[in-house]
Amino acid sequence: MTDSNFGTDLARLIHPRSIALVGASDRPQSIGGRTLTNLLDHSQIDGELYLVNPTKTELRGQRCWPSISALPHTPDVAVIAVPASGVIAVMEECAARRVPFAVILSSGFGEAGAEGERAQQRIKEIADSVGMRVYGPNCPGLTNVNQRLGMTFSPSFPHDLVQGPIGLATQGGGLGRNVMQAMERGIGIGLWASTGNEVDLQVADFIHYMATAPDIKVIVTLLEGIKDGPRFVAALQCAADHGKPVIALKVGKSEYGQRAAQSHTASLTGSAEVNSAVFRQYGVIEVDDIDELVDTAWLFARALPSEREAVGVYCSSGGTTALTADAVGMAGLRLAEFAPETTELLRSKLPDYAAIHNPVDTTAAVLSDADLIESTLGAVAADPNLGCVIAPIALDYGETTVRMAQTIIAAQQRVQSPIVPIWMSDRMGEGYRMLVTGGFAPPRSVNKAIKAIERWTRWGRERREAPRAAARPATARAVAGGKLRNLSELEAKQWLGEAGIRLLPADVARTRAEARRLADGMGYPVVAKIASPDILHKSDIGGVKVGIADGQQVELAWDDIMASARHHQPGAVIDGLLIEKMAPRGGVELMAGVTRDPVFGHVLTFGLGGVYVEILRDVTRRLLPIGPAEAASMVREMRAFPLLAGARGRPLADLAALERLLVQVSDFVTAHAARIEEMDLNPIWVGAEGEGALPLDAVIVSRDAA
Amino acid sequence: MTDSNFGTDLARLIHPRSIALVGASDRPQSIGGRTLTNLLDHSQIDGELYLVNPTKTELRGQRCWPSISALPHTPDVAVIAVPASGVIAVMEECAARRVPFAVILSSGFGEAGAEGERAQQRIKEIADSVGMRVYGPNCPGLTNVNQRLGMTFSPSFPHDLVQGPIGLATQGGGLGRNVMQAMERGIGIGLWASTGNEVDLQVADFIHYMATAPDIKVIVTLLEGIKDGPRFVAALQCAADHGKPVIALKVGKSEYGQRAAQSHTASLTGSAEVNSAVFRQYGVIEVDDIDELVDTAWLFARALPSEREAVGVYCSSGGTTALTADAVGMAGLRLAEFAPETTELLRSKLPDYAAIHNPVDTTAAVLSDADLIESTLGAVAADPNLGCVIAPIALDYGETTVRMAQTIIAAQQRVQSPIVPIWMSDRMGEGYRMLVTGGFAPPRSVNKAIKAIERWTRWGRERREAPRAAARPATARAVAGGKLRNLSELEAKQWLGEAGIRLLPADVARTRAEARRLADGMGYPVVAKIASPDILHKSDIGGVKVGIADGQQVELAWDDIMASARHHQPGAVIDGLLIEKMAPRGGVELMAGVTRDPVFGHVLTFGLGGVYVEILRDVTRRLLPIGPAEAASMVREMRAFPLLAGARGRPLADLAALERLLVQVSDFVTAHAARIEEMDLNPIWVGAEGEGALPLDAVIVSRDAA
Repeated sequence: MTDSNFGTDLARLIHPRSIALVGASDRPQSIGGRTLTNLLDHSQIDGELYLVNPTKTELRGQRCWPSISALPHTPDVAVIAVPASGVIAVMEECAARRVPFAVILSSGFGEAGAEGERAQQRIKEIADSVGMRVYGPNCPGLTNVNQRLGMTFSPSFPHDLVQGPIGLATQGGGLGRNVMQAMERGIGIGLWASTGNEVDLQVADFIHYMATAPDIKVIVTLLEGIKDGPRFVAALQCAADHGKPVIALKVGKSEYGQRAAQSHTASLTGSAEVNSAVFRQYGVIEVDDIDELVDTAWLFARALPSEREAVGVYCSSGGTTALTADAVGMAGLRLAEFAPETTELLRSKLPDYAAIHNPVDTTAAVLSDADLIESTLGAVAADPNLGCVIAPIALDYGETTVRMAQTIIAAQQRVQSPIVPIWMSDRMGEGYRMLVTGGFAPPRSVNKAIKAIERWTRWGRERREAPRAAARPATARAVAGGKLRNLSELEAKQWLGEAGIRLLPADVARTRAEARRLADGMGYPVVAKIASPDILHKSDIGGVKVGIADGQQVELAWDDIMASARHHQPGAVIDGLLIEKMAPRGGVELMAGVTRDPVFGHVLTFGLGGVYVEILRDVTRRLLPIGPAEAASMVREMRAFPLLAGARGRPLADLAALERLLVQVSDFVTAHAARIEEMDLNPIWVGAEGEGALPLDAVIVSRDAA
Repeated sequence: MTDSNFGTDLARLIHPRSIALVGASDRPQSIGGRTLTNLLDHSQIDGELYLVNPTKTELRGQRCWPSISALPHTPDVAVIAVPASGVIAVMEECAARRVPFAVILSSGFGEAGAEGERAQQRIKEIADSVGMRVYGPNCPGLTNVNQRLGMTFSPSFPHDLVQGPIGLATQGGGLGRNVMQAMERGIGIGLWASTGNEVDLQVADFIHYMATAPDIKVIVTLLEGIKDGPRFVAALQCAADHGKPVIALKVGKSEYGQRAAQSHTASLTGSAEVNSAVFRQYGVIEVDDIDELVDTAWLFARALPSEREAVGVYCSSGGTTALTADAVGMAGLRLAEFAPETTELLRSKLPDYAAIHNPVDTTAAVLSDADLIESTLGAVAADPNLGCVIAPIALDYGETTVRMAQTIIAAQQRVQSPIVPIWMSDRMGEGYRMLVTGGFAPPRSVNKAIKAIERWTRWGRERREAPRAAARPATARAVAGGKLRNLSELEAKQWLGEAGIRLLPADVARTRAEARRLADGMGYPVVAKIASPDILHKSDIGGVKVGIADGQQVELAWDDIMASARHHQPGAVIDGLLIEKMAPRGGVELMAGVTRDPVFGHVLTFGLGGVYVEILRDVTRRLLPIGPAEAASMVREMRAFPLLAGARGRPLADLAALERLLVQVSDFVTAHAARIEEMDLNPIWVGAEGEGALPLDAVIVSRDAA
């Protein structure tokens, strides 16, 4: 079942043959009492349930054992519901007994200050010493809905038991329970892991498990922080390999959110940009709110997207039809052109004043005729040119709407393309209930429905167009030791040159005469820049001259720059003057930067360069390494891509050279991952086809051996 | 009550002293029968209700009159519920009787083809001949909820009668009824006008009425098309003058939406960009969906925003707190820093592990203590540093959540700042019901709530910072007759120059020698461009040379350009060569364009120029005329504004000259509104402070007298 180093076999945790509840209690409001109720009264346990409590011999008619050590057999899972102060002793017993999994419900650990943090560390040591896996602490437990097993103290457990193909992996319990309550709207969630402080098992491990679990089709995750980037990426890759969509809501997109999430979970939230880039790179569907998460998960659970991307709209209110068509257009979705037989059927059945082309507006006049609605909606949904049908219901008109709900259910049973009914009214009567029990989870507004369909469609397209790459090594994350150093521009360029990256000729002249000789050798025009380890912002001190046209101007530049440098930074060590061939006229200025993300490792940022970098933020990102396909995608993701593709009468840019350069940068960083801390090529000059893509400036911060 | 030419006194339509129902019927499903039921059984009519039906002498115990002519008194309103074929005869009677208002419920007019369109025109003529005002046809009627009067055939009328300070003006009835059903979520709508085909009275007239109606505090409108731009603008100005927010949802932002709306209402949808610009200019809050409309309307109905823009977050789930804080940050809202007494109270009351700084996370542990929640939530809501408190409720926990709802209601009664509870769960139990009956209309997701608060906050800020301008004339919309002509660049620039707009020296040389003389007079470098009425795309035929450095180069340019022009367009009439002083180095390239919108008149588009115009679409728009304050706003709305404000080491641009130029363009277009059809200044060169803002190219399309 494992797909990589990170895959852990959690089958015995999720489907245990035997469970010990340590801290079982008859006080109904205690953690141990509530967990006992869930296990005894509301779960279907196939194997053995051992109750452990040293002060009792019996609880609710079941035998009570004094300790884990005393049990007749070793349980697959020990569910620990004793106060924090008693957890370590229980863990030691579990370790001695070689219990494979511990679920620690107790709180009072990492979230409760330094002492709790130390106790949590101790738990980890005990577990690691025998290879025991730990879930928690400070978590509501694990809920296997499809097996109806609640190793949880939550009194909500018996209320949220709608089985289904959605797997849910969360950190905090509150938001996770919110998603569980969406069962009321019609979704089925087969498994919910809420991993709390994640002393050992993390959200990533459950994504990994769900990626191969036969009862899970769609993986949903709520994240506050990602502790282990490579483990998370491996889980995503496993899900992608098995064709399972992963839908994620990640808190921490703003500074406020990062701060709040950090204070709540004490985990690194990382950079929102990098997180989103990783999501995109590994095909994760990122959503912005819980309702969107639910809408999207339901649609994926209903069907995976087909290659038919166009949609149909079927509605009985003109204004609502227009609103929906508008949202379709704004989201960049396409309205299908109906097949002739569909149009013919609509024309023959619907009244003259109805709109029979997509979007279909039947008008409210036909609402009372259920057969008519069913045949026309059925015809639209069966149209071979579309992949899904949007059926907005603007109003709750009582019986009329109940009939509409019935016809939607009936029509769906006869077609493959999902029908997405939208329940727009705040009056949620019988028609709504009927849709929910009929297998629909109606989005509550037009835009929410369209967002879900847009994400569903895009995921399908991206999977078809860019099949995921095979598993590949992550580049190193944090590296300890060594000394950070800014390489000089020449050093940086020489290193890049050795790696096969094409650059303009450049060299450092030690004397005025040598400067002229170098420039003569390169051919004019050239650029001259002060070469000094002490001067970082060369332009600011008059240390740069561009467009130098002949040898005389080279000598003048030498004098000017040296005078200016000595004037502004009298003590600076000066190596000489960097003479470089000037970039050809024309072209576009782009940039590429590499940083080391503490969660995920090296990340490449690429986009528009020059003065527009910070203002327009037209950039895209990838975890390294990348290959040619991803380089091509990055280039095309820029908003300003039309500038490279010949817009406004510009020549077509040398895209092949640009894409090659990005892969070369990736290979270079991967080859020197421990040493390269940061890198900045800005600007990169890109000429017309055949002229190449040349980094004009290069900054590298290296971590050299101490 | 009228505020301008467009204000119509609709008081007698909305609060009639007497009503005649023409087509009153005892067939319960007929339009006349349903309207009768609504008037007789569900309305509170203070004055007289006359039933008109020539085939009856009595209906449901009320006397029936044979015709309008036969009535003992002239009613304020005739509600016409006869089939389309009978409407014109009834209208003629109404006109003869001088009935001031007709509400035509019947359909079968403009929406039903050419014949219906003709009948509709006839209705208009009859009404205009005596100054009668017409509402409809093809509409569900007029619903005055605050007076409990339903001149409507909708069977929903008796179900949607929650009174309140929100006025609703819509075109189509379906979406309007959807908003009415949001009464179920807690909003009160005092008046709903749904104007159907708008043969006379339009949505704009009802916005205008509501702007001064004492029982309406917030105006909400759903628009498919705007028929009369100036009338609409006048209504918005009246609402702004009376400090009433207008919240609008406009269909037609995409091509699909425009097409669907057009086929539905046959009204011009106009350009989405222009509509949004007009909304922004007149302080209209534009929303993207019905749920957002309701969320926003409720918040405005609760309170107008104060000058305290920061918000508080109060929650009992850590993850939800982080999600909410994140949304606050992403929306650009600010979390308030609590006053010391607030923090002190929270510290003394809440447990150690709670987060007592904003965002407050009480943790779920305190949920059972209603007094504790009420005192701490009350303290947060009373904090002097914030303008509203967001209270997300992630879960329906039954009794616990009911208590939370009760404490929110109690806390709100003691403070001014609105508390915005968010009902995030799909389980909508007793706690939800309690909030709704307690005066709240809880948004259903965090992002929806934050969107409403963001719009509310921004409206308040914009009203404080930029008080609305007084009423001003709209520039001409469509102008008939005349002949469209592209002015030559020199003509265009001369006309602009006469209007006081500063330009670089430019003139047309007829000969090579004159070209040199002109250039010598201006000083080098200069630009030379072919001057020909027949050559529009000068660069494409080699008709432009820049950076001409001396007289010899001018002569060379003459020869090159003339040869090239003759080669590419042998038959073109050539006036000579336009010689123009070249713009100084440096600077930023911007653009300004003017078009004539068929609904609203002249619109100015301003933004980034050069190659980035179409790709980055960094532009902003205003209806003309504009004054200096609006010019300053336009400049600051550009995403690239930091480029002008000294970002990335650039000099501060000459903002004063740029803003002056925009006002000059506005004045110029307003002065020549009939003649100027289109105008394009691209690029506009803007230098550093004191260097000015200069249009480098100018295109004007004029409509000259025939």
